[in-house]
Amino acid sequence: MVGGSREPFRDRLAASTSRLCVGIDPEPASLPPHLGVGVGAVRRFCLELIEATADQAAAFKPNSAFFEQLGHEGWELLREVVQAAGRRALVVVDAKRGDIGSTAAAYARAIFDGLGADACTVNPYLGRDALSPFLDRADRLAFVLCRTSNPGAADFQDLPVGGGGAPLYIQVAKAVAMWDREPPAGTAGLVVGATWPQELGRVREEAPGLPLLIPGVGAQGGDLEACVRELAGTAGSYLISVSRGVAAASRGRDFAEAASRAAAELHQRIAAAEQTSE
Amino acid sequence: MVGGSREPFRDRLAASTSRLCVGIDPEPASLPPHLGVGVGAVRRFCLELIEATADQAAAFKPNSAFFEQLGHEGWELLREVVQAAGRRALVVVDAKRGDIGSTAAAYARAIFDGLGADACTVNPYLGRDALSPFLDRADRLAFVLCRTSNPGAADFQDLPVGGGGAPLYIQVAKAVAMWDREPPAGTAGLVVGATWPQELGRVREEAPGLPLLIPGVGAQGGDLEACVRELAGTAGSYLISVSRGVAAASRGRDFAEAASRAAAELHQRIAAAEQTSE
Repeated sequence: MVGGSREPFRDRLAASTSRLCVGIDPEPASLPPHLGVGVGAVRRFCLELIEATADQAAAFKPNSAFFEQLGHEGWELLREVVQAAGRRALVVVDAKRGDIGSTAAAYARAIFDGLGADACTVNPYLGRDALSPFLDRADRLAFVLCRTSNPGAADFQDLPVGGGGAPLYIQVAKAVAMWDREPPAGTAGLVVGATWPQELGRVREEAPGLPLLIPGVGAQGGDLEACVRELAGTAGSYLISVSRGVAAASRGRDFAEAASRAAAELHQRIAAAEQTSE
Repeated sequence: MVGGSREPFRDRLAASTSRLCVGIDPEPASLPPHLGVGVGAVRRFCLELIEATADQAAAFKPNSAFFEQLGHEGWELLREVVQAAGRRALVVVDAKRGDIGSTAAAYARAIFDGLGADACTVNPYLGRDALSPFLDRADRLAFVLCRTSNPGAADFQDLPVGGGGAPLYIQVAKAVAMWDREPPAGTAGLVVGATWPQELGRVREEAPGLPLLIPGVGAQGGDLEACVRELAGTAGSYLISVSRGVAAASRGRDFAEAASRAAAELHQRIAAAEQTSE
C-alpha cells in the first residue's frame, strides 16, 4: 500500500500551469542503445525521462502493457516509476481495465493502492458496475475510454445507437457524466483522441467539466492546435498526452535533453494556442 | 518466454471430454483460514485447487486482477499458476485487455509469451486493430467480450445500433466472426454470460463455430441447464466457467476435496443436460 488520502484529482489538475501529459511507453527494442538491455535499461530510461520533463509536465502516463511484458520485474518497475513520477506530477496509469464486481475492485486496489496512481484509464464496455470501484475513490480519477485515437475506433464507437442516432461514444460520454454527478462526484474523466478534434468539442458539450485525456498528438497525426481551439472557453481541464513525440525525440545519448526540449516546445505550443483562442 | 508453438486452441478444446472451466479468483480475505495469509496462502490455494479439479476440467481461468493486487509477487505467482494449470488443461487468462497498436502487441506478448496462456479475454471497445495482435496468433485464442454477465452489461451492450436495431453485442459478435475468417482464422471466441441463455443462442447464430466462454453460472444466477439447451446441436465448442461454485465450495480444511466434488458434479450436470438436449 502506498499513498494515503490525496487532494481531489480534478483540483490538482486545475491548479497545474501545464496541460502536457508525458506518456511513458518503454518498448525495449526502441530505447537509446547506450542504456543497455533488459529491465535495467527500461528503468534508467523511465527515470531519466521523468527527471528531464517533470518541469514541463502536469502529468505522466506510464503504460502498463510495456511493463507487464517484462514479467514480475516489470510490475515492480512500474510501481517504482509511478512513485518517482508522483513526486513530480500527477500520475495516470494507462491500463484500460474493465471487469465486474469483486474483480473490478481488485483492479482498482492494484492500481490506486498497489501502484499508487492518482488516476487510471478504464474501459466502459461492461457498464456502470464495472466502473464503480474506480469512481468511488474521492481522491482519485478514472479516465473512461470514449473516442479513442485509432482507426478501429470507428468499428463500434461510431455506431449510431438508440432512437436519436448519436454515436455510441456520445452515449458513453452522457452516461459517464451522469454517473459522475453522484457521490463522491468529480472522479470521472474521458479519453478522446486528438485525431478527432471535432468529436472532442461534442464530448465536452455532453460532459461539461469532466477532465479530458487526449492522446494521439504527433505520431498518430492529431492536430494539437485544433484540439486546443475546440476546448477554448469550455468548462473543465484537459491533458494533451504525448508519448513518442517526447520520449523518442532522440535515440542518442542526448535523449533526455531532447525529451526536455520537446516537452518545453509542446508546453509552449499549447499555451500559445490557448492564448490565440481566447 | 514460455511455451513454443501449440495445437490450435479450437482443436484442443473440441477434443476435450469436459466443458467445465474452473475459475481461479483468489481473494486473500476469502481463502480457507488454515492456508495462512499473504502470497504464500494464495499460492497454496491455487495449486491445490488445480490438482483437485484438473481431472474434471477442460480449462482453468485465472483472473489477473486478483494476482495484480498482490504486486510483483502476484504477477510471478500468476505465471506459476498458468504453468501449473497448463500441464493439466487449457488455460484462459482472464485479463480483459484492450488497447491499440504497439500497446496491444505488448499485452499479447505479456499474456501469451510471458505468462504462457493458451487463451485470454479481450475487450472489443477499441475495434479491430486492438484485437489483431491477439487474433494473429494461430496457436492461441482470444475470447472477445460480447454479452457479459453483470447488471451493467445493459448500459451499452444492449443498446440498439445502426439501422437494423440489433443490440451492440450482436454487432460485436458479427464483426468478430467476420474478422475470425481471415488468416490465421479460428483464433477468436466470444464471452457470453450464463445469465442470458437466450442471448447465448442469438450470439451462436451470428457467430457459428466460435468457441464460447460462459461465466455467471452459480453465484451470479446463471442457469446451467438452460445454457446447454440453447447450444445443443449448434456448431462450435463452449466452456461453462464456474469460479466460487467450485473454489469456494468449502472454506474448511476440506476445500480441495469439496472443490473436486463440486467440479465432478458440474461436469456431470453439463453432460446430462447435453444428453437430454440431443
